[in-house]
Amino acid sequence: METKTKKNWVNWLILFSTIIVVFLLGMLANSITQRRTEAKMVKTPKVKINDFEPRNAVWGENYPKEYQSYMKTADTTFRSMFNGNAFVDALHENPRMVVLWAGYAFSKDYNQPRGHYYAVYDVRNTLRTAAPLKPDDGPQPSTCWACKSPDVPRMMNQVGIAEFYKMKWASTGHEVVNPIGCADCHDPKTMNLAISRPALKEAFERMGKDITKASHNEMRSLVCAQCHVEYYFKGDGKYLTFPWDKGITVENMEEYYDTYQFKDWEHTLSKAPMLKAQHPDYEVFMMGIHAERGVACADCHMPFVSEGGQKYTNHHIQSPLNNINASCQVCHRESEETLLKNVYDRQLKILELRTQVEEMLVKAHYEAKVAWDAGATEPEMKDILQLLRHAQWRWDFAVAGHGNAFHAPVETARLLANAIAKVQEARIMLSKVHAKYNIKEVKYPDISTKEKAQAFIGLDMEKLKAEKAVFVKEILPQWDKKAVERESKY
Amino acid sequence: METKTKKNWVNWLILFSTIIVVFLLGMLANSITQRRTEAKMVKTPKVKINDFEPRNAVWGENYPKEYQSYMKTADTTFRSMFNGNAFVDALHENPRMVVLWAGYAFSKDYNQPRGHYYAVYDVRNTLRTAAPLKPDDGPQPSTCWACKSPDVPRMMNQVGIAEFYKMKWASTGHEVVNPIGCADCHDPKTMNLAISRPALKEAFERMGKDITKASHNEMRSLVCAQCHVEYYFKGDGKYLTFPWDKGITVENMEEYYDTYQFKDWEHTLSKAPMLKAQHPDYEVFMMGIHAERGVACADCHMPFVSEGGQKYTNHHIQSPLNNINASCQVCHRESEETLLKNVYDRQLKILELRTQVEEMLVKAHYEAKVAWDAGATEPEMKDILQLLRHAQWRWDFAVAGHGNAFHAPVETARLLANAIAKVQEARIMLSKVHAKYNIKEVKYPDISTKEKAQAFIGLDMEKLKAEKAVFVKEILPQWDKKAVERESKY
Repeated sequence: METKTKKNWVNWLILFSTIIVVFLLGMLANSITQRRTEAKMVKTPKVKINDFEPRNAVWGENYPKEYQSYMKTADTTFRSMFNGNAFVDALHENPRMVVLWAGYAFSKDYNQPRGHYYAVYDVRNTLRTAAPLKPDDGPQPSTCWACKSPDVPRMMNQVGIAEFYKMKWASTGHEVVNPIGCADCHDPKTMNLAISRPALKEAFERMGKDITKASHNEMRSLVCAQCHVEYYFKGDGKYLTFPWDKGITVENMEEYYDTYQFKDWEHTLSKAPMLKAQHPDYEVFMMGIHAERGVACADCHMPFVSEGGQKYTNHHIQSPLNNINASCQVCHRESEETLLKNVYDRQLKILELRTQVEEMLVKAHYEAKVAWDAGATEPEMKDILQLLRHAQWRWDFAVAGHGNAFHAPVETARLLANAIAKVQEARIMLSKVHAKYNIKEVKYPDISTKEKAQAFIGLDMEKLKAEKAVFVKEILPQWDKKAVERESKY
Repeated sequence: METKTKKNWVNWLILFSTIIVVFLLGMLANSITQRRTEAKMVKTPKVKINDFEPRNAVWGENYPKEYQSYMKTADTTFRSMFNGNAFVDALHENPRMVVLWAGYAFSKDYNQPRGHYYAVYDVRNTLRTAAPLKPDDGPQPSTCWACKSPDVPRMMNQVGIAEFYKMKWASTGHEVVNPIGCADCHDPKTMNLAISRPALKEAFERMGKDITKASHNEMRSLVCAQCHVEYYFKGDGKYLTFPWDKGITVENMEEYYDTYQFKDWEHTLSKAPMLKAQHPDYEVFMMGIHAERGVACADCHMPFVSEGGQKYTNHHIQSPLNNINASCQVCHRESEETLLKNVYDRQLKILELRTQVEEMLVKAHYEAKVAWDAGATEPEMKDILQLLRHAQWRWDFAVAGHGNAFHAPVETARLLANAIAKVQEARIMLSKVHAKYNIKEVKYPDISTKEKAQAFIGLDMEKLKAEKAVFVKEILPQWDKKAVERESKY
């Protein structure tokens, strides 16, 4: 009897175990099916996306994960040791730059860059675009919108490329309202990476290259290179142009500009014919070890994420230092702390050189002014001004890029060392001019704050701010209203 | 019948196959046994190695593989793009260095370094050690032998450390005859890595560190750091000292030297109180990424080899560029061509800065001479000379190390950028002194060849060479004869 009871008990146990296992298998199967459905749902477009669709939210209907991660570019909380958003007002943090850009709009207002989400907001609100109350008011051309919005390729398609650049910035304010987003880098039909901006294509053509032959991995950097490059506004038509015809090193581009005798502006103090470097991120990145090893911008700034059975590209484009786990540590097995130290070590050394160059450049521009004031002649000053142009170009090239000190630290140090050599050579020559005009001592101005520096170079900041306030209050709402009306008809 | 024949045939086949397999297994077993025997033989000492045994060949009896690979340091065929032994006569290749070292022995003679095998030969034959015909003749103290031979720890044990340094170089010439070798880095009893030179131990002690606590991996760099470092001859006793008390950066050591008001020599032209950097290989290496990742000198300069069932450390210490396969490619999966390009890219950028610093320094020393000649006063020149000291110290620190441009390229670029800043600052000040003394123009000397440069700084090279020839002909054979007699009694 006892044996039989035991046997029965064992049989029951087997039965119940089987039931439990089958039930769990059922749940697993269900979960898999659900994930598949989810994947299908995600990949089944909800809406049709038209060519040149500038509204990111519309794309977001079909690609919610990418869109939602993109929206995180609105987050400004990350602080790196040096940049990110640590110093919102760069001129406040570093008043030397006010003097270096005297005579150019950057001396009025220059903030640390923020996420793509703010692209339109920030360019509307900076003092650099000033306060045009009428569509044809200056100072800026429509070219200033070029990198700010997917409305730009839409407009270019509508009015023509050269025609778009030629217009005044204020005349297209109601058209360019969606911040940098989907249509800037994607083909709406295939979702493939695509070049939406003509300047990069044209630069490739002039170099004898065909950008349509670029691999997918190259495109993962080239879509960024549409904007994160050195460029200038060519001719009266303010045609956006990359100065890459002779190559992409600082010397190549300088030769290009020198050949054209192009200048961005004349320096208020020294009268030097200056070049303003934009943000040659792509060019400098290409000179660093990560590019040499085949790493693309997206690898570190947009690493893959796995979420709910979906693998997708994180469109929260940001400093990899805020995401070391998913960026650096995919290849580097060191701790976050170590990797962060390695980056900061490089940045600290570059910062040390950068600060020196700036101090020397400030002095040199002022010493040149003193020489002019004492009666120096153009022949006496010509070579000096050329040295100042070349020195500051190198400094700006090294500093204006967002991650140069990390992307290519040796190249960046080389740029700054050459900037030091050139500005100091200029100062040796200036000292001789001073001697000739019997200038014994130079008393340098107090530029210890942004306000003092701006007053010194002759900016009436109260006036500029007051004008801008009128523009923000009166014009921006008009632009937005028109844009809403227009977009409601899509 | 046929079937039976087939079966027989199959049986024979099985039998023979078995015989062959068993035979091969026997051979394998024999091979393993032989290798084991070989390994045992290798590890069974043939001779007893005494404490302070300076003769590398004696150690070689017990460690033939290590010894034979060490002997390959006599090979001078490898040519890198820049150094190695490409330019045997560095002053011939770069006459600027003659002027930079004016007043110091390096301006007479400076060759690219060769393998450890040549350590004694080269220091005997360089013009820097001149031609002492009697034991107490100058110019150099025995300290100059410190890094050249395992006879040095033997002598220090015999006569005392401070006593050894104090003697004249010529008085110990018959004692120091074996080139850098086994006893410099190994304990003869345990074969463990060991520090044979007091200067490194003493430097650690002054920094509050205990070198006996160093790990084996640290020792794989520290034995090299006995010599491949910045050092100076302290006081009248010419006591070999590392200036590490405040740290091992260029600024730390400069502060150390400035505090002591130490100078290696006074510059013939500028009268600046100069510092000669030796070869701060270890210090600069420690500031680079390889050291940060725990790589030791031996990993790349002495990688493991497998030979005849034996794994041993390759004692052919050389440029890893001549052995990329066993050095770089242990960690880096790129092609030799790519890795070589990566190294040369860094070196080229550093070379560009180095050349600029040298040209500026040559001018500055000469401009200072012009100022002195015109009647400049010490108060007028004091700050200028300090800048020249600090600028050239940075240049020398960056350049004198054997692999700085690769070991820590960003740090090396930083050093050279700071050197540029300082020498140019000095030249700005010199230009003001010139103005004061009414010097309109400086005509720089022609130093386009080593011969012209040496004549310009006042060296009578024919005399120096003739004296050296007498020394080589008369003294060196005496030293060798005495040494052979002495060593024959061991």
